[in-house]
Amino acid sequence: MIGGDAAGMSAASQARRLKGPGELEVVAFERGHFTSFSACGIPYWVGGDVPERDQLIARTPEEHRARDIDLRMRTEVTEIDVDRGRVRARDLDSGAESWTSYDKLVIATGARPIRPDMPGADAPGVHGVQNLDDGQALLDTLARTRGRRAVVVGAGYIGVEMAEALINRGYEVTVVNRGSEPMSTLDPDMGRLVHEAMEGMGITMVNDAEVTKLLTGEDGWVRAVATEDGEYPADVVVLGIGVRPETTLAKAAGLPLGKHGGLLTDLAMRVRGHENIWAGGDCVEVLDLVSGQERHIALGTHANKHGQVIGSNVGGGYATFPGVVGTAVSKVCDLEIARTGLREKDARRVGLQFETVTIESTSRAGYYPGASLMTVKMLAERRTGRLLGVQIVGREGAGKRVDVAAVALTAGMTVEQMTALDLGYAPPFSPVWDPVLVAARKAAKTVGQHP
Amino acid sequence: MIGGDAAGMSAASQARRLKGPGELEVVAFERGHFTSFSACGIPYWVGGDVPERDQLIARTPEEHRARDIDLRMRTEVTEIDVDRGRVRARDLDSGAESWTSYDKLVIATGARPIRPDMPGADAPGVHGVQNLDDGQALLDTLARTRGRRAVVVGAGYIGVEMAEALINRGYEVTVVNRGSEPMSTLDPDMGRLVHEAMEGMGITMVNDAEVTKLLTGEDGWVRAVATEDGEYPADVVVLGIGVRPETTLAKAAGLPLGKHGGLLTDLAMRVRGHENIWAGGDCVEVLDLVSGQERHIALGTHANKHGQVIGSNVGGGYATFPGVVGTAVSKVCDLEIARTGLREKDARRVGLQFETVTIESTSRAGYYPGASLMTVKMLAERRTGRLLGVQIVGREGAGKRVDVAAVALTAGMTVEQMTALDLGYAPPFSPVWDPVLVAARKAAKTVGQHP
Repeated sequence: MIGGDAAGMSAASQARRLKGPGELEVVAFERGHFTSFSACGIPYWVGGDVPERDQLIARTPEEHRARDIDLRMRTEVTEIDVDRGRVRARDLDSGAESWTSYDKLVIATGARPIRPDMPGADAPGVHGVQNLDDGQALLDTLARTRGRRAVVVGAGYIGVEMAEALINRGYEVTVVNRGSEPMSTLDPDMGRLVHEAMEGMGITMVNDAEVTKLLTGEDGWVRAVATEDGEYPADVVVLGIGVRPETTLAKAAGLPLGKHGGLLTDLAMRVRGHENIWAGGDCVEVLDLVSGQERHIALGTHANKHGQVIGSNVGGGYATFPGVVGTAVSKVCDLEIARTGLREKDARRVGLQFETVTIESTSRAGYYPGASLMTVKMLAERRTGRLLGVQIVGREGAGKRVDVAAVALTAGMTVEQMTALDLGYAPPFSPVWDPVLVAARKAAKTVGQHP
Repeated sequence: MIGGDAAGMSAASQARRLKGPGELEVVAFERGHFTSFSACGIPYWVGGDVPERDQLIARTPEEHRARDIDLRMRTEVTEIDVDRGRVRARDLDSGAESWTSYDKLVIATGARPIRPDMPGADAPGVHGVQNLDDGQALLDTLARTRGRRAVVVGAGYIGVEMAEALINRGYEVTVVNRGSEPMSTLDPDMGRLVHEAMEGMGITMVNDAEVTKLLTGEDGWVRAVATEDGEYPADVVVLGIGVRPETTLAKAAGLPLGKHGGLLTDLAMRVRGHENIWAGGDCVEVLDLVSGQERHIALGTHANKHGQVIGSNVGGGYATFPGVVGTAVSKVCDLEIARTGLREKDARRVGLQFETVTIESTSRAGYYPGASLMTVKMLAERRTGRLLGVQIVGREGAGKRVDVAAVALTAGMTVEQMTALDLGYAPPFSPVWDPVLVAARKAAKTVGQHP
């Protein structure tokens, strides 16, 4: 296994479960200091909701080794020799290099954060939040800086979650965002709701703003974020611009990459055209079951599933990963944000024609204490009425409602079929028509009106 | 429309939406004082979470009349004359009777509570909670009684919700239950978890106890609930034994009833064999899509759906109600209880062979504040691996997770297919493997091991 995080170590563990040490030797290379950690949890550690770094570690190197996995920490694979079935690895501390041969190879090299190539991007006080070392470095900076002004660059999941973390730490937070609205994984009309809610939390939102450079003070520390139109003073800057598949090794080895730069696999997570090489996690592209095209989605839950599938196959069993529907859920303070399936522009890009509807409803029966408003947007294909996507923005109880739509998408349901779904109802849990059903009813009506 | 609650008035409203007053005359008979009220909300009104009765009324008689519905309150239909297409109705205040003819008839007569035929069942201090008048009478009793001992007879949804309501009102609550565990809509092993949690809330649980009579004091008021084995002192008694379809009129008219005493309809909610009579809500039986047999389920969310479907068809449109999967969710204080599909005994009864698995997981990532334990039980068919049912007992975030299983059941998914479901993941919302997926993985493994 190349890579000791979610996909690699899930694969290692699952393969080990199926085949004992006498049958299968499992070697895993990890260039970092940690294994099997929750990158998704870093914003909550930085924000103070999770007090200790080690709570984010699902399984330590020692725990993996106790299960007969030959785990080589701080060891970076520098070359894959596909023809001879071997990898070259360097011990990052000693610098020693050696070749290790394999019968089966698993590539789980993850993703790397997009670091803008601009002046000041490496200045002290500028932080990414990709791994636990990054998180610790940011926490050290927060402990050290006197000023309380934070600028977050990027308004995707990481950006909005880091905005919450910094608010929780008592910072004045500005989010500088290239798009017209935050959360570009939503359509702009739904992103607008996030925008307004974040402003309501006291966060300064700067949209349509391309960062041109990071300005530093005399001491070399970052002091402001500059865009074409303005300067935003900063005592700390967090970069949350997104990630790209880390496929440098794979590319050098001639393995097939998709248009997003991720490895291409078959349904068993085997690298296409290679009998004995598997790949999973943030370094691969996945099939989007709604659009029928590959996407790159860096998300721990997919990486874990890939690892399970790969480990089963490597261990002599059988499993497949059929694809994704693009479900994601996030929050900023008490605002919950969820999406699944296609946005308007995704649908257009793949040639689908559709209707959209947007409804407002509540998380519980309107009369029940704590009922909160949520907005549900739904896309349905013209003529067939097939569900294409759902986006939800609301407060408590909004986010996980997207799961109903995720299953319906997987099953290829029409919005008309969805109107009859037998969802759990009781006043503390839902209005008598669940918000997803209200949207489905309206969508079904709209599709029916345009034959 | 016979009946002015969820099914009847939804049908009336939907028919009116499709056809104006010049095209369709809509007459609705309601024998009670209210229309379109939330019976499911009564426990929360009694418990004080909902301060005002009128909050439970979705639409008043005046609001219905303003939409050109000829609503006749306090008017009870006493006979359906199918041959001549007319109903006889009595004004309950004046006693006057008259016939009204119809082109299309909608029967939405609801359900009636099972009142035990035993001494003392009608004594003052003994209450059902079927309608708003019942709720008000119970509140009046609670305001009047000095004692603080309440006995709830029955431990289904109404029973456990009323236990919560009475706890909230400061009563010492005893729940006397005929079954071996509370919540007989769950398998007993899951009901056991509810039992233990309710005892942890200070509720006295008496299981395997058939009530034989209600004892009254010298003033005629109830003073205790007697079973074969004991006596439970009570200042107030709430009966939550369940309901039966109210189909006296339909039966007298010769309309087809099923084995649970409910009207039998086709997919358009038309009474079988009758071109111009529809029925919906608590007075009908519904097709269980998992077992393939009819069931009786009294639940507002189904009644509303039936009303929509009937109204569409009566109004000249087209809609169907394909059936249910038996989803229900409830809570007792902070304990959430949910189920969908078949219990073990349901599956056996219809000839299905299955495997069961039970897992424990958490509502959020284990390290995230507020993560709470939940237990998920899953039934999957032998050989095919088709999902048959899910039961969940846990705290915050447990209940509505059943919706994922409800959609999967509707789509006929196997537990293996479910393991790949793309459910929303972020640490505040779910562990990296959602509890439903953890159960599906274990179920898939179990089914696979028994070929």
